[in-house]
Parts: sequence; C-alpha cells; structure tokens
Amino acid sequence: MTDLKGLNTMAVDDTARVTVLGLGLMGQALSSTLAESGHTVTVWNRTPGKAAGLTEQGITEAATLGEAIAASPLVVAVLLDHDSVHDALDPYVEALSGRTLINLTSTSPNQARELARWAAANDIPYLDGGIMASPDMIGGPDSSILYSGAESVYAKHRPLLELWGEAAYFGEDPGLASLWDFALLSTMYLTFAAFYHGAALVSGAGVPAAEFATRALPWLTGSAATIPLQAAGMDSGDYTTDVQHLHFTKAAADAIHQTAVEQGVNPAMFEHFKNLVDRHVANGHGAESFVRIFESFKNPAQ
Amino acid sequence: MTDLKGLNTMAVDDTARVTVLGLGLMGQALSSTLAESGHTVTVWNRTPGKAAGLTEQGITEAATLGEAIAASPLVVAVLLDHDSVHDALDPYVEALSGRTLINLTSTSPNQARELARWAAANDIPYLDGGIMASPDMIGGPDSSILYSGAESVYAKHRPLLELWGEAAYFGEDPGLASLWDFALLSTMYLTFAAFYHGAALVSGAGVPAAEFATRALPWLTGSAATIPLQAAGMDSGDYTTDVQHLHFTKAAADAIHQTAVEQGVNPAMFEHFKNLVDRHVANGHGAESFVRIFESFKNPAQ
Repeated sequence: MTDLKGLNTMAVDDTARVTVLGLGLMGQALSSTLAESGHTVTVWNRTPGKAAGLTEQGITEAATLGEAIAASPLVVAVLLDHDSVHDALDPYVEALSGRTLINLTSTSPNQARELARWAAANDIPYLDGGIMASPDMIGGPDSSILYSGAESVYAKHRPLLELWGEAAYFGEDPGLASLWDFALLSTMYLTFAAFYHGAALVSGAGVPAAEFATRALPWLTGSAATIPLQAAGMDSGDYTTDVQHLHFTKAAADAIHQTAVEQGVNPAMFEHFKNLVDRHVANGHGAESFVRIFESFKNPAQ
Repeated sequence: MTDLKGLNTMAVDDTARVTVLGLGLMGQALSSTLAESGHTVTVWNRTPGKAAGLTEQGITEAATLGEAIAASPLVVAVLLDHDSVHDALDPYVEALSGRTLINLTSTSPNQARELARWAAANDIPYLDGGIMASPDMIGGPDSSILYSGAESVYAKHRPLLELWGEAAYFGEDPGLASLWDFALLSTMYLTFAAFYHGAALVSGAGVPAAEFATRALPWLTGSAATIPLQAAGMDSGDYTTDVQHLHFTKAAADAIHQTAVEQGVNPAMFEHFKNLVDRHVANGHGAESFVRIFESFKNPAQ
C-alpha cells in the first residue's frame, strides 16, 4: 500500500510538474521538449518576455521566481553561470528545501561541488549536468547530457532526463559531469586548432581550407582510430614501441616547426608539442613511443 | 611508329627496372612491393646486410651505389634526410643524368625545392613524394603517397606508384607534397595532443584514458564532421554566426583553463588556444565565430 501510494504521488506530483529557470535558447528547448511529452511546465526568466513561444505550448510563465519554485517539486536551472545560480536561488532557499534541483547551468567542477554542498546544507537533493548539445539538438538522437551528483535523483528522473537525449551518469562526485564536459570540449577545441594549423601551413601555397579538409578529415578520422591503442599505453605507462618512437617524432616535429616558421605560419601551438617531444628525448626516452608526452599533460613537471 | 617504339622502350627499359636506394623498413617495403608485381629491382644501402629478405624475392643487392644507379633508368631514394640524399648522390650526378629520380626521403618543402633545382641543373627528371603510411601499410588499401614536381614523371610512372597505395599529385612545385605531408602530420600530432589534454583532465578524478576514449573518440569524430563548414568560413573570411560565437567560446575556454589549473594539469597548450580567443574578443570580434582564430594561425600578427 505504501509503495502504491508512493508511485501514485510520484506520478502526479514528483515527475509531472517541472519548473525551468532560465529561458535562453537552451532553457527554451529543454522546456519545450518537456511540454511536448505531457509535463506540466512552469518557466521563469530574470528578464520577462522570453516565454512567448512557450506559452503557446501550454507552458506557464511564473510572475515571480517564488511562484515558479512553488509550482513544482522538480526545479531545473539553466542560468548564465555559477554566480547567477546563487544570485537567483539564495533568497529562495527555504522554498527550495525538500524540492529537487537539477542544475544544467555551465559551471566548473569545483563550482558544481560548491553548489552541491550548498544544496545538501539546505536539504535540496542535487544533480549536476553538463549539456553536450546545442539547443536545436535537444531531444534529438545526437543530444547528450552528462550527469553527476545524487544517484537517487538521477535514477528517479531518468525517464525525464532521457527526453532531452542521452542521459549519462558519472558518479556521486557532483564535479564529474562538468569535468567530463570540459575534457571533451577542450579535446574538441584543440582538435579544431590542430586543423587550423594544418590549413594555415598549406594556405601559403594557395590551397583553400575546403580543399585541405577533403584530405585532412578522413586522415584525422583514420588517425583518431589509433587512440584506443594509445590509451592502453597511457593507462599502463608502458611506452615501449616498435614504430613511431620519439626520435622519429622529434625529426618530424623539428622539420614541421621549421616549415611553419618558413611559411610565416604562427608556430606557437606546434612549438608546445615540439618542446614536449624534445624534453622527453632529452630525458633519455627517445626509443619510447611519442605517447609518452601524455605524462607531461598530467604533470607539468614531467 | 615512333609511338609504338616509345611504348616498347618504356615497357622494357623505363618501367620494368627500378633501383631503390635505402633499405630502412620503408625502403624494404617499397622494394618488396615492386618485386611482387614483376619489376626487376636493384637495391643499395649505405651499410650492407639489410637485403637478406629481399634477395629471396629475386631482388639484386648492388655492391656499389654506382652499380645500383647503372642498373635502372628509374631511381627511388628513401634515405634518412635531405643531407643524406646529397651525400649519396652528389658523387654520382653524371651517372644519374638522364635517369629519373623519385625522392621519397622525408624533407621539408624548401629542401625538396632545393633538390629539384639540383636535379634540373643535372638533367635528372625529379618527382618528390611524402609517404603517409607506415612500412607495414605499403601496398595496402590505407597507404597513400603524396607527390609533387615533374608531372611528366608522375604521369609516366603512375601505374608503378599506385602499386604502393594511393598516388596523389599536387602540382609542379616540388615542395607541395612535403607541405601537405607536414600539414596533415601536424594536424594528427596536435589532435593526439588534444586527446591527451582531455584525458589528463579526467585522469585526476581516476578516469582511465581508455574509459575517456570510449566517449572522446565518437565525440571527436562527430565534432570533426563540422570541419567542412568551418573551412567554408575560413576560405570566405566570413565569420558571422548564430551560434558558438567567441564570447561563448571565451567563457568556456576561461572555465576549462581554470579547471586545468585546479586539477594540476599542464595548462600550456590549452592556454595558447585561450589566448587566441581572448585576443579576438579584445579586438572587438566577440560576436563572430570562434573559427576566426584561424586568422592567427595564418598570420601571427593577427
């Protein structure tokens, strides 16, 4: 009987009603997806007038933040940054107590941990999320949101979270989702920069970036397929190799760097790579794999 | 009649006999592939004793470099570096005169141009190549060699070149193959470094690189699919955008950089990316696409 009553309460109170705070493009997309699936959605934005398209979908725009929080047992925050979460929610901490907070605002790992401590001190079950999608992707097959924090919140609301896309859970440490988010984003940005470096090299010979891309993209994808093998070395710390040892990489890196200088290309980013290769060769590791430079990413003293 | 005689001469003299100079793993693989397809192959290496496996395939090891050059109208050099090409071939420039030289030794674009001038001055038709494959890949479906220099040499020997893998021709400027080679290699190395940076970020939270790779690899491949769109902006110089503008990138880059510092990860490579983003925002381009930083790769003053 208790179980049935609990389920019944969940169905009516705990998962049907959702409040979304923040109506940037992302907040709008998240709200819209929930409304489409039959949720009772209440929204709030610091500056009003962002909810026009949403109210047509039956979404309620709360007149005040207090009303928005009171409307639902589950509150989703999609605000500007860490400070804006505190600015908005600190005055309403009593109203939030006992409600669940899923924070999709972009924060650093340590900021997410701070918010989780603040939530715990105020009896607010807290889940932190990092959105790996643009607003137009939300609800589609390529959307992914990374979560960490209270596993109970993740487990309970997983069907709702999966309406937005893949909902991946990384553990109780509330900073993990943001850490994974930043790790993936930095890999993406630096990969784009890697392409820009190559495109800049050939641009001096009049080769358009689009022409370089036709060869660079399959080359990059093919090269990236060796990453799992590299990762095995990174995890084991075993950098022995029969091919692509650091002496070979050093010769290539020196020649590429010299060419970047000759072509008038900005050599700074590649120089950093070359310096790491040089340092590991100088430290007597020339016969080992170039994957060894990973040690210098983990530890600047290496 | 002249044509038929020419063809006949080609079949017997010009394409059947090939000399390969340099018996590192790559020279061995190239020689072996030619012998398998019925070519009469002569090889030479500065230090003898590297041809044991090849002579079993009917390949002749020349006793001297002079004999090696005399054996074939087509000479393929796969030596250590630019200097070693001159060291080996300068004393034999008269013997080489009238023969064709295909140089697959790793050189910089300017070194390839210098060798092409040297060859032209000595009546040696010259084609330069950059090998985008490891020795075990030669002759397989993923092998690719980039060529530039005399188009007549490329056109005449294309069937032979295609025995080794894809044979792509980039133009009469003999430095182009090397330039493309270096552009692709630098993109690859920096992409690996991009992965190392992300893996280092999560490693502090106990996440193995192999676990990071399971998510980073499809993420990287998916992100790279946007490169042709970025290339269109790079070529047009039109960096207007509705999404991912530099203000947004700056917020993300600042947070990632701060996290790298907090996690004790080496922030130097990402710092370079962040500095470029900061510079373009400071110059008033915050509302434009982050692809704009390509301008700084082409021109360090930007």
